[in-house]
Amino acid sequence: MATYKAPLREIDFVLNDVLKVEQLSKLPGFEDATPDTLLGLIEEAAKLIEDKIAPLNAPGDAQGCTIKDGVVTVPDGLAEAYKLYWQAGWVSLCNPTEYNGQGLPFTLSKVVDELLCSGNVAFALYPGLTMGCFEAIHATASDEIKNTYLPKLGNGEWTGTMCITEPHAGSDVGAAKTKATPNGDGSYSIEGGKIFITSGEHEMAENIIHFVLARLPDSPPGVKGLSTFVVPKYLVNKDGSLGARNKLKAMNIEHKMGINASCTCVMQFDGAQGWMVGAPNTGIQNMFVMMNLARILVGLQGLGQCELATQNAIRYAQDRKQGKAPNGKEQIIEHADVRRMLLQMKATTEGARVLAYETGLYVDIAHKHPDAAVREEAQDWVDLNTPLVKSFCTDSAFDLGSMAIQVYGGHGFITEHGVEQIARDSKILCLYEGTNGIQAMDLVRRKLMMNGGRLPQRFFAKVREALKTAGAEFAYISKPLAAAVDDLEATTKWVQQSYKSTPDDASFGCVDFQRAFCLTYLGYNWLRMAQAAAQHKDAGFRQAKHATALFFAQRMLSQVSALLANVRNPAAELMQLDAANF
Amino acid sequence: MATYKAPLREIDFVLNDVLKVEQLSKLPGFEDATPDTLLGLIEEAAKLIEDKIAPLNAPGDAQGCTIKDGVVTVPDGLAEAYKLYWQAGWVSLCNPTEYNGQGLPFTLSKVVDELLCSGNVAFALYPGLTMGCFEAIHATASDEIKNTYLPKLGNGEWTGTMCITEPHAGSDVGAAKTKATPNGDGSYSIEGGKIFITSGEHEMAENIIHFVLARLPDSPPGVKGLSTFVVPKYLVNKDGSLGARNKLKAMNIEHKMGINASCTCVMQFDGAQGWMVGAPNTGIQNMFVMMNLARILVGLQGLGQCELATQNAIRYAQDRKQGKAPNGKEQIIEHADVRRMLLQMKATTEGARVLAYETGLYVDIAHKHPDAAVREEAQDWVDLNTPLVKSFCTDSAFDLGSMAIQVYGGHGFITEHGVEQIARDSKILCLYEGTNGIQAMDLVRRKLMMNGGRLPQRFFAKVREALKTAGAEFAYISKPLAAAVDDLEATTKWVQQSYKSTPDDASFGCVDFQRAFCLTYLGYNWLRMAQAAAQHKDAGFRQAKHATALFFAQRMLSQVSALLANVRNPAAELMQLDAANF
Repeated sequence: MATYKAPLREIDFVLNDVLKVEQLSKLPGFEDATPDTLLGLIEEAAKLIEDKIAPLNAPGDAQGCTIKDGVVTVPDGLAEAYKLYWQAGWVSLCNPTEYNGQGLPFTLSKVVDELLCSGNVAFALYPGLTMGCFEAIHATASDEIKNTYLPKLGNGEWTGTMCITEPHAGSDVGAAKTKATPNGDGSYSIEGGKIFITSGEHEMAENIIHFVLARLPDSPPGVKGLSTFVVPKYLVNKDGSLGARNKLKAMNIEHKMGINASCTCVMQFDGAQGWMVGAPNTGIQNMFVMMNLARILVGLQGLGQCELATQNAIRYAQDRKQGKAPNGKEQIIEHADVRRMLLQMKATTEGARVLAYETGLYVDIAHKHPDAAVREEAQDWVDLNTPLVKSFCTDSAFDLGSMAIQVYGGHGFITEHGVEQIARDSKILCLYEGTNGIQAMDLVRRKLMMNGGRLPQRFFAKVREALKTAGAEFAYISKPLAAAVDDLEATTKWVQQSYKSTPDDASFGCVDFQRAFCLTYLGYNWLRMAQAAAQHKDAGFRQAKHATALFFAQRMLSQVSALLANVRNPAAELMQLDAANF
Repeated sequence: MATYKAPLREIDFVLNDVLKVEQLSKLPGFEDATPDTLLGLIEEAAKLIEDKIAPLNAPGDAQGCTIKDGVVTVPDGLAEAYKLYWQAGWVSLCNPTEYNGQGLPFTLSKVVDELLCSGNVAFALYPGLTMGCFEAIHATASDEIKNTYLPKLGNGEWTGTMCITEPHAGSDVGAAKTKATPNGDGSYSIEGGKIFITSGEHEMAENIIHFVLARLPDSPPGVKGLSTFVVPKYLVNKDGSLGARNKLKAMNIEHKMGINASCTCVMQFDGAQGWMVGAPNTGIQNMFVMMNLARILVGLQGLGQCELATQNAIRYAQDRKQGKAPNGKEQIIEHADVRRMLLQMKATTEGARVLAYETGLYVDIAHKHPDAAVREEAQDWVDLNTPLVKSFCTDSAFDLGSMAIQVYGGHGFITEHGVEQIARDSKILCLYEGTNGIQAMDLVRRKLMMNGGRLPQRFFAKVREALKTAGAEFAYISKPLAAAVDDLEATTKWVQQSYKSTPDDASFGCVDFQRAFCLTYLGYNWLRMAQAAAQHKDAGFRQAKHATALFFAQRMLSQVSALLANVRNPAAELMQLDAANF
């Protein structure tokens, strides 16, 4: 079975030595969020997750969820663990205190998300969607609605969902057909079917709050005619007590490749009573309030699975003996090709962690910094980084899950060893909250273009600033990084131009462009880690960080130029191939 | 559910227009194997596989195998389908006629293997291991043993296994501990446990013949002390009738990531009666007789899964509507990023098919050609291509399974759509018969070195010969291919040199080297396909082949130089990292 131990030393290093997390405690409202406090909380979360939640990961996968007469049963132990988790305050970590939250930094909650998603990513979806629903209602609803739902969503006592997708409206959200008809009393009657509803139905919480995308009568077609509604499983009385069961039902649950402890429901709304939040026909904007943060969360889910794959592969390779390496040792970690895989896993996971945590930091700065210009810059970083974190961490999770299997050899294919579950669980991360292809289009079509193209410029400038501070002993990484950033900047200009004249060219290469951008970002992270690690007190830690930085510089950053060369190819002939001739 | 239609036009094109399969009928003994006869047989196999075997693929995955008191039950319908398959003569296609085979070319049997492994790769393991066992006994046993076992193994009436792996002896076969003690009557008593035994126990055939690696008393340690034994489930009487049940038993079956319709058994030999085949302590050589052909077969399994992923993704993308592409069409195949994935899938699958079939052709030529020099050259190609076919087709199967999921979006993660099964089923192909890392070591340590390094030289010369015939209209591929082959040759020399002085350097980069070699080989294949397709009568086929060749040349061949640059990096600092510091 895969086991999990939170990488506390690494987290400490990234937060303190690389990202200077003490800056958080200088933001208004975060005065208590000192590095020591944050690390203390992370240690506490780690204990709960290691002891109570990670042990449910493999059994939950084996047992899965079941449905009978609309009642969904989750795997044994999950409900008790969820209760422990929300009651200990982990769901509400960064929620506002007025709604039972603890008002701590978003960054901290993302670190805890990483731990939880290493321990049990299927479990993590219950609090994860709850937070998404909370954020969406918080951003859009009237005080009355907020006061009705947010206290119990905010601490996790009730759980939440996002009801967006319909059978013919996935990536094309605007095709959604679910109807909302005014009841005349300020409420609406919701009619329609939704699919892929994570945590759509279960008995783990007293109530479930659905955030539903639906269409008002006579609304315009497409995305411009969508509105958002709060639809509770049980109606809530004025005094906060629960009333009648609403007219909505889980019709079925999906059988999936992975995350089997998470119930993925087909939901039917049969005239369910709901309340509109936000203005009519602004549903898509209301969704995106939540969607952007949800995409960062999915990135953290990916990071958690990267870490799980990496640490299990390392432990197995340190222990498993097969044959003799040239140095006479028998552990497979001494074999060059196994070591190559482990270093690639480390370089990916540790580099991705800096990207993910830094994005969290920028969210806090964008929300809290007293200086508007600093907030604006931080928001630019959040916008730029969101597709990078989402796509890179999740593609990597699947790749590293597969690589962990490879390190285990034939044993990796056997369920009881637990690493094949990582690959299965991780694949969904590349698909939901916008497939990774959609992320790449968001990067190319929006993030490179908005605000006169200044988002990527901020990145190039920041990397060049870091390159200036790098002494000759870091030339092994600063030199290829400088070349990568020059190439990336030139290709960014090409993409910005060509998107206007021949959008298919830019779109055809968008996934390769996104990967090249991420690898360059990781190069920047590895330069910073190499510099910070050189000062670290532990010699073993210094040695490992140096070797991993070297691996990244020599064997991963080297992909950037080939990827970018791909991007700059014209696509016209490929787009002209008749669909029937494929 | 994934559906399967054999790609007959493509197979015809590769066999006839690209590989000139008519050369087979000029080999002694294959006079009847004319192109028309081969294509006719392939069509017949396709019908049986499409109608009777492919429909069992998804249900077999869902039902899986079970064990009770040592009796293994396979999924419904499998036993009947297997009976149809062997009785129609498909198992025995290329077996010698003296043992109930049909004496047809190996190449033909590999094409049929591709179809079968598209239709149902888990099913394909039953005949696949039977063939492996047949070949091993055929190559090593006395006439008496051959006459006892081969007629019924040769037509598939009995099935076979390979009992190699033990819990602590996987990639390190030499660690095997199973004992063989002489009984004094010419037979041996076999004692020990074996794991990962595909088709180790089932009721689909009257008898199961195990080919077992075990250790004679006082044999030297390691691989030099292993011998091979034939151990039947039921002893066979002189008259060919079945006698007593032998002392061996399936103790358990594994729960796996995929190929759930194939039973993977833990076998216990408790003094089972067996007969040695081959000389004492030559077990490892005896295994490799079978192993090399088995590796080619695993490559074909990968190719079959590549095809299944590709054709299902194309059909889904031709049908599924989501949003509007710039050209106004709604099918997702019109979206640039989806099209990019489909072209990558086509470029990979069609390019890999030429590699796999060509390897099959070389096997036939190496066996049958009257000229010893031609046979020797053909055997060189078989030796060189074996790790390439095995690794590239299987890595691609997993990658393309994952890419098919990505094309389907969230639906791809749902079991009923059938593409997630492709990724799950395919992962084992990267692991068994030597992990793909082991293949890369075989390539670098043996195939580049043997016979004075002439194997890769044959490849470079052949590619350059093809480049000479390529007119200016093929410059889009011939130019990058010429650069790739130059780079590959230079890096091959570097590897050949550095392996002698610093073996870890060569080993550290062996997987990247192997991939670069495969991509260059596919470039050669795509050049040949582009040339041949230009003469094809169907305009749509010409258009698709040109676009796919262009895609490969611009966006896949471009990876070669980055991979080879990785290979040439020194690894000393990475190898010195203390295992405990990871």
